[in-house]
Parts: sequence; C-alpha cells; structure tokens
Amino acid sequence: MVHINHHYLKLRAGYLFPEIARRVNAFAQANPQARIIRMGIGDVTEPLTPAITKAMHEAVDEMAQRSSFKGYGPEQGYGFLREAVAEQDFRARGVDISADEIFISDGSKCDTGNILDIFGCDNRIAISDPVYPVYVDTNVMAGHTGPADESGRFEGLVYLVGNEANGFVPELPSEPVDLIYLCYPNNPTGTVASRETLARWVQYAKASNALILFDAAYEAFISDPSIPHSIFEIEGAKDVAVEFRSFSKSIGFTGIRCALTVVPKQLMGTAPGGERVSIHQLWNRRQSTKFNGASYVVQKGAAAAYTPEGRAEMRGLIEFYMNNARLLREGLTAAGLTVFGGVNAPYVWVRTPAGLGSWEFFDLLLSKANVVGTPGSGFGAAGEGYFRLSAFNSLANVQEALQRIRGVL
Amino acid sequence: MVHINHHYLKLRAGYLFPEIARRVNAFAQANPQARIIRMGIGDVTEPLTPAITKAMHEAVDEMAQRSSFKGYGPEQGYGFLREAVAEQDFRARGVDISADEIFISDGSKCDTGNILDIFGCDNRIAISDPVYPVYVDTNVMAGHTGPADESGRFEGLVYLVGNEANGFVPELPSEPVDLIYLCYPNNPTGTVASRETLARWVQYAKASNALILFDAAYEAFISDPSIPHSIFEIEGAKDVAVEFRSFSKSIGFTGIRCALTVVPKQLMGTAPGGERVSIHQLWNRRQSTKFNGASYVVQKGAAAAYTPEGRAEMRGLIEFYMNNARLLREGLTAAGLTVFGGVNAPYVWVRTPAGLGSWEFFDLLLSKANVVGTPGSGFGAAGEGYFRLSAFNSLANVQEALQRIRGVL
Repeated sequence: MVHINHHYLKLRAGYLFPEIARRVNAFAQANPQARIIRMGIGDVTEPLTPAITKAMHEAVDEMAQRSSFKGYGPEQGYGFLREAVAEQDFRARGVDISADEIFISDGSKCDTGNILDIFGCDNRIAISDPVYPVYVDTNVMAGHTGPADESGRFEGLVYLVGNEANGFVPELPSEPVDLIYLCYPNNPTGTVASRETLARWVQYAKASNALILFDAAYEAFISDPSIPHSIFEIEGAKDVAVEFRSFSKSIGFTGIRCALTVVPKQLMGTAPGGERVSIHQLWNRRQSTKFNGASYVVQKGAAAAYTPEGRAEMRGLIEFYMNNARLLREGLTAAGLTVFGGVNAPYVWVRTPAGLGSWEFFDLLLSKANVVGTPGSGFGAAGEGYFRLSAFNSLANVQEALQRIRGVL
Repeated sequence: MVHINHHYLKLRAGYLFPEIARRVNAFAQANPQARIIRMGIGDVTEPLTPAITKAMHEAVDEMAQRSSFKGYGPEQGYGFLREAVAEQDFRARGVDISADEIFISDGSKCDTGNILDIFGCDNRIAISDPVYPVYVDTNVMAGHTGPADESGRFEGLVYLVGNEANGFVPELPSEPVDLIYLCYPNNPTGTVASRETLARWVQYAKASNALILFDAAYEAFISDPSIPHSIFEIEGAKDVAVEFRSFSKSIGFTGIRCALTVVPKQLMGTAPGGERVSIHQLWNRRQSTKFNGASYVVQKGAAAAYTPEGRAEMRGLIEFYMNNARLLREGLTAAGLTVFGGVNAPYVWVRTPAGLGSWEFFDLLLSKANVVGTPGSGFGAAGEGYFRLSAFNSLANVQEALQRIRGVL
C-alpha cells in the first residue's frame, strides 16, 4: 500500500493566490464588462529588453548548428554566467564571492523550497510574519511543523513578527533557532534591512551556529546607497548564510525562468555525530542528482543582462517599475491611507482603512474599484489588517487604479 | 546549531559520471594527442531541428513585445503543450489521458527525484538493478534506506535483478513493495517490456495497492509495433502508475530542458488513517509550491515537435541515432562480443569480454581505443561484467569507435 506524505494534508486548502484567482474569476464572470486591473501577484509586465532578446536569438541559432550545439550543461550553471554574477553582483561591490559558489537554477521559488532537502528534520525554523508563503508551506510539506491553528500559524515554527512598531523588521528570536528565513527588500512589506540589522542577524547566527536563508530576490530595486544588496556585504556572513537571487523581477524573467543561489564554500552544518559538513557540497550533490541545469538559451539571456547594454536596459526597467511604486505610495498616502514600502522595493504595503480585515478590503477594491491586490493576511497572521499592491504594471493601469481606489475610499 | 540531512552522507563519494569524467580527464591530460570518442553519457549531439528553432525564435520575439509578453505561466505547463501531448502521445494511441493529467517540467531527472516529496517515508521501494542511478540516490537522500554494502546496494531497498537469464526484465518482487520504479525502454540495458510484462506489473500493483513510477524517457525510440510506448496502454494502469517522459533525447533537448509527468486523476495513495488521497492533487500542490513552470520559450519549442514538420524532423533524429545503435550492435557482435539492446533503445549493453570487470573494460577501452563508455557496475551491482555504449554521437564517431574497439579486442 503506497503511503502519501501526510504532512501535505496540513496545508490549508485555500492557498493564497488560487483563492485570489477564484474570487477574481467569480467577479469577472458576474461582471463581464468590468475592466479588472491586477496588482496582486508580483508579475512583471514589460517585455524582454533588446540585449537579452538578441542573446537568446543567438543562443537558439547556436543550438541549431551541429558545430555549436550544446547538450547537457553543468548542473551548477555555465561558467560564463556564474563568472558574470560573481564579478558584477558581488566583487564589484567589494564582496568576495567566487563563481563556483554560485548555483544557477530555473527559479528562486524552486531553490528556496529545494534547499530544505539538505537540512535535517530536527532544526528549529524561524520565519518572518508576514512572509512569502513558500517558506512556510515547504516546511510544512517537509514535516517540520505540526498542524495550523485558526490564524494559519503552524505549530513548531518560530514566527518573527513584523509590525508597525518595529517598522516591519522583526527582532531577533527570543528562543533558540537553527534556520532563519530573511527576505530583504521584503516581500510583502517592501521594507529593507539596514547594515546594522543584518549585522545583528549575522552575529546572532554565528553565536548560535544558526544558518540564515537570505532571500534577496528584490535587491535590484534598492536605491538607497546605504542599504546592503547582499547579506555577504556583512563581515562574517559567509560563515552563516545562503543567499537567493532571481532574474524574475529585475530583467522580466518570470516566464523565462532563471535564478541563482550563493552557497559559500566555508559554510558548514552539523551531522548527528557532531561532524561538520560542507553545505556547498551538500547543495552541489542535491543539484547534481535532482536537477540538470537551467536552459542554455535562458542562461545566455541572463548573461546579456551583465553587458553594458543589458545593464542600462535593466536600470530602465527598474526605474519604470519604481516610478509606479512611487506613484502608488504617494497617491495612496494622499488618499489618506497609511503606506509602507515602495521606496527600495516594488511593493507597497497599505494599512486597510476603517479597521477593515484584509479580505474585506480585497473584496471592496475588487467589487467597487475592480482592482486586485493581495490581502496581507495571506502572508501570515501578522499581515491581517494590511494589503499589498504590486508596482508591476503599466503606467496607465497604475494611474487608473489609483484614481479608482481614491473613488471608493 | 543547524543540522544537515545526514542521509546524504550514505551516498558514495565516487558517483558514476563524475568518476568517469575524472578518469577521462586524467587520461586526456597524460595523452593530449589522443582523440577521445565519448559514448558514456547519453547526451544528444544533433542540433535542434528547423521547426523547433523557428518556434523558439518566435517565442523570443513574443516575449520582446509588450502586447505578447508573458510573465508567470501555469506551474503545470501551458495548455497548448499539455493538449498536444495528450492528443498525440496518448489519445492518438488509444490511451485516454487528458491535458490536465500532464505536468510539464524542466526535466525528467527533476521529476523522478522530486516525486518522492509527495510520498511517505514508510514505503517499501523496489528498484531494478541495473538502473538509472537517480532512482537509488534520491531515495537514499530522502532517508528511505540504510547504508550501502560493499557492492553499493543500500539496506532497505528491494532490488529487482535484471540479468541474461531473464533478458534483463526483472521478475515480480518476492516480498511486498509499495513503490516500484520501472524504466522501459530500459536505461542502461536497452531492453523493452512487452505488453504481457507490463500487464503483469499492473496486476501486481493493483493487487498490492502499490504504485509504479514508470520512466518512459526513451519511448520515442521504440520501433517494434507490439511494444507499448506508455504503461497507460495497459488496462487499469491509470489506477496504479505515474509516467515520466522527456523531450531530452527525442528532440535533442538535453540542454534546452523540458519533460513531462503524467499523473492520472484517479490515482490514489493512502494517508496514515487509511484515507485515500489523490496523487494528482498532491503533485499539483508540490509543483505549485516548489516550481514555477518551464520556460515559455522552451515550451513553445517542445510544442513545435507536435506539428507535422516537427514530427517528421523528430523521426529523422531518431532514425539517425537508431542507425548508430544498429551499427554498434552489429559491429560489436561481429567483433565477438555478446550484445543486448540497441533495437528499440539508443543504448547497447555489452557483456565484457574475457571476464573483465566493468571498470577494467572501461580502462581498457579508454587507454587502448580512446573510447569512453559507461561501466555497467555504475548502474548497480547486477551491472558488473557489463558495459553501456550510447548511440548518441555522429556517424563518423560511431564508425571510428567501432573500428578502434575491434582493434583492441
């Protein structure tokens, strides 16, 4: 008799984004004339830029010629991309990361989920609240939690609450933890971590032999020069952290699929007998056994983002989305809402007006303004009473959404 | 203190393909003039065909225009590809599989490894020997085994031995098992399973509530019309099997990355309380949470293989490689070797001559003929005394390899 992984049964049926899709579809069917503006999922809308398009065309042509055809690539990614990342994303910022510490993949969602494969089941897990739901769900699926309570919190996880009092930057945990998920610039709140905040986490992790899983998927959107783009800008972080990065938002690759994970070679975990084991070797073994590398065509496209033309085009895309974020932040503030984020991140995080619950505000905006956002409570219990709007949209849609939202407040 | 997944430490350091690479590199460095012919890894050598190249170029262009740009796709794959697969790979062969039972991914290696996520840790696992090493290694990594013995066999796995007596088609297990890996056409032996053989497995699985993980990555290479391409050609298989398929070998996608997994909606597993749970829903939840879909450009390329031009080009590729397989089979037989496979699969499986061990024969061919193959023992204890040669190469290389091998026998 084949047994299932029963931990999946602990997951709540009403997963955030499908539940949003269900409500939006129901509304759209009942109101076929409504022009719905979707600012829920953080999905890019601007096309691939010319440098990237050109590189991908060239890669397809290479694959169409026997002399330049490529079969299996390295599971860890091609050297041309790993080198470009190491040089431009790290060494150019004074961070000593080598190409072979960089693992190219098909997405950060995959990497942040799959990384649990290499850790034991007996770690105490700390996760921010509110947070990107994948961290929680993959831990539930891996059997690292008990059941959820009514607010959706899972037994056995240590929740690090972000709220207005701490500026949505949680304090260090008050109980011992082993694996810590941090995400800055933050999804969903759009807040950033200062150098001092990150240094405090690195110090904590060192003192307790903990490991930080640092999600930097939105680092390209940082404009404040004092804010670190990488946790490895903090002294000692290479002893305690893994970092996830993504091409999804910075160069419009949500449908193209490319990301990377940085695993320093000096990073160690502990085996049951106390033996210290290289996390880099474990992740390399995991990827070599369960992954076959990202598509060559995709990696060539990503590498084009490191050419001077590609860099300039990427900056253009980011400026475009961050102008949307500014408009949202300013427009919603002018409309009387309390707004966070939107400065160094493409998300604005709004306190719902008049004490409305997150889903109540969602339904209000959907039905009256035909604008879709994401209820804060979908990101965790501490997100209740908040709402996320994404800056990934056309300028015209952002302007119209603002006008409509103002009309219903 | 962060604990690692200590099951990884049970894996043998000398993983098959890296060990081959190590020996080949050492030989190449010592003999820089040697022109080494690589027939070890089953990696395609022929370029992408025109229909596929054209579709990928068009997809890149779509992504370069705001009006046709696509962000996140469905995690399960685009409808256009799922429909084409369901229609042409299944319904056209009289097999009732619907598009929403097909999950598009970035590779069969990923899928065959990741599928374990949705099963419990208490299943008894049966794996053929010799076999594609990923099935064993992913079970070791998931903690489903004890340590390995000297022959490399892991405690707790049920090995289904294929040998000359049973034509490399293992018998049913003599002890109860819950999860069964089958791979036909077989990697590494190149043998196929008849309709009767598969029917026996389906019957066994039904009787014992077991589940078959059927790897059909090489189905496109079947020429004998009596051999099933899919386990779902067997009555009742939709109650007991998941099937993996790949675009890697059939249309040259090892570097492009696309595969698919078929999970029938009626397939059920058992929760600890005895509750029956849909495997389709579990896999959908796994993929939605830990995967973000295959690249749009890649899926458009794969879909082009289902156009009349694409079909014809694919047949051309397969005929090309199967002609190589025929030459290898005939040439090695004429040289006095005992040869299996190579008729409905792109691999030939050779009994090593003069009682040489698999690695001894590997070293002999490498050093004397400068030809690289794969030692059978790398695929499991039962592969000792055998050797795999891949038909994925140029005609000229196959001909020269044959001549050189004949010269050293």
